[in-house]
Amino acid sequence: VKQIPVLLDTDPGVDDAMALALLARHPLAQLVGITTVYGNTHVEQTTHNALALCERMGLSVPVAQGASRPLLKPAGHGAEFVHGEGGLGGVKLPAAKRRPDPRRAATLISDLARAHSGDLVLVPVGPLTNIAIALNQDPELVRHVRRVVVMGGAFGTQGHWGNVSPFAEANIANDPHAADQVFAADWEVQIIGLDVTHQVLMDTAYLQALGAQGGDLGQLLYASSRHYEGFYNARTGGGIFSHDPTAAACALDPSLCTFREGPVRVVLDGPSEGQTLQALPQVAVPWGAWSGRRPQQVAVGVDAPRVLREFMGLIRGEGLS
Amino acid sequence: VKQIPVLLDTDPGVDDAMALALLARHPLAQLVGITTVYGNTHVEQTTHNALALCERMGLSVPVAQGASRPLLKPAGHGAEFVHGEGGLGGVKLPAAKRRPDPRRAATLISDLARAHSGDLVLVPVGPLTNIAIALNQDPELVRHVRRVVVMGGAFGTQGHWGNVSPFAEANIANDPHAADQVFAADWEVQIIGLDVTHQVLMDTAYLQALGAQGGDLGQLLYASSRHYEGFYNARTGGGIFSHDPTAAACALDPSLCTFREGPVRVVLDGPSEGQTLQALPQVAVPWGAWSGRRPQQVAVGVDAPRVLREFMGLIRGEGLS
Repeated sequence: VKQIPVLLDTDPGVDDAMALALLARHPLAQLVGITTVYGNTHVEQTTHNALALCERMGLSVPVAQGASRPLLKPAGHGAEFVHGEGGLGGVKLPAAKRRPDPRRAATLISDLARAHSGDLVLVPVGPLTNIAIALNQDPELVRHVRRVVVMGGAFGTQGHWGNVSPFAEANIANDPHAADQVFAADWEVQIIGLDVTHQVLMDTAYLQALGAQGGDLGQLLYASSRHYEGFYNARTGGGIFSHDPTAAACALDPSLCTFREGPVRVVLDGPSEGQTLQALPQVAVPWGAWSGRRPQQVAVGVDAPRVLREFMGLIRGEGLS
Repeated sequence: VKQIPVLLDTDPGVDDAMALALLARHPLAQLVGITTVYGNTHVEQTTHNALALCERMGLSVPVAQGASRPLLKPAGHGAEFVHGEGGLGGVKLPAAKRRPDPRRAATLISDLARAHSGDLVLVPVGPLTNIAIALNQDPELVRHVRRVVVMGGAFGTQGHWGNVSPFAEANIANDPHAADQVFAADWEVQIIGLDVTHQVLMDTAYLQALGAQGGDLGQLLYASSRHYEGFYNARTGGGIFSHDPTAAACALDPSLCTFREGPVRVVLDGPSEGQTLQALPQVAVPWGAWSGRRPQQVAVGVDAPRVLREFMGLIRGEGLS
């Protein structure tokens, strides 16, 4: 089986750690690099977390630090109130022995895209700032990347809406200008938003099984998810939404999701700032705001039982089951 | 039974004519005035139509001409491609014997609000330009109006979206700044949008029955709806959506709809220009864009069979059945 070279752009983050674990264990994944970004917490912390998680998972891929703030809008305050202190639920991981890659995140993205030209799948699961910077300094990037699989957005399909406002999801709301640029670029983007990740629920029993049956890695993921589950329980009735692992799984196997095709834009300001919109063929979009936008793929359905089953199998060390 | 004084602000328009017919016939309605606005066609034509329709329906209420263009955005091209030539499906009504009221629309609104202080229900079924002008020149207006029942908007509940774009409904998209102001004002607004009017379908057989059993008025409504039904058939599978008559019916009997309460804003520009948004208590709206907004009522459900049955009974001359 030919493996798929994957670059994870991430702000770990509880579910980011799960996405990284999935990529570390998945037989189809050739994880070739990690770039970090502010988001769930500040970028020095997400870089620390990414390096420390790599050490725990036995990963030696380059980890390059990226953006500390959005392109244009003021920096936010992070989401430690969701992910817990330090972004991993208060779990203190010892600093990794190695240092970050000396390159900036956007440079590592460009370098790896060329090293795996035509094959690299970019998987951004945080604010899209690094990807936008890479596009700005390297417009040819679009020719080298096979696909971009974004965790972000909320399109209001299936009645699912935003999480930082009724209209906006956190990754996109953190940097709407970057996201709008990534969706406009001439490459294939698959967008895994709340419309589907809210359907992939790791309930309390699932998380306990992950901790009990998943060895050291399962214990780490379980421990780091304690604060996160506490935050989500009121909304989920027990358990957490699997945002980032769902995107990582779909990056390797797009058949896990069904998609709707059409141009995508992000609302840059105003009462619905950060909202993601998709134009559909049934009704015209008469405004210049939509002209020249290529179609992208928005996930509208997901095989949630398979995502959950496969993730559990990988963490248990059973491979894809 | 105490009647409800109603002022209809309108751009007739095929379904506007139906709303006017409903108000002319409804036992609970005391139609006290009509104001006209651009929208489905230009305002000289909508004024001509309103006066001519009044003559056909035996109505002698004042008809005051209003705005010819939106507050801020460039004027559109009308919607004769939907409503047919002259706005009434090519039906040429002879000019009424009387002239419009000498007052401007916004002045008539203020005058009638004071004449029926605490009781008047405003029913705007076109762009909200006249209402916004009235608010601007007469801020005390809000204290005299009992309720504003708007036909407009699309909130994406029930999977229903816009008609002039995937995100926006025509009345609101025609003048988003006016609509945003009307929803911000300190009065009670009930918003009857596509979320519910797309559920109230006058199918082909219904329209034929209206023409065959509704006397002169039924024949007129049927004849004027021929072009409109032709436009809508592809979308409805035969028949038309009852936008304006649904709003008029709810103005007299709010129990026809169920409502969701929360502040409402309109997107003023960008890729979703004209979109209506409602903030719901489940998720915070952290931006200044929402501060100080009072809750309004958005219709999310409608008793469509009752709306259709009552309208048919009124046009047949049977009263409320």
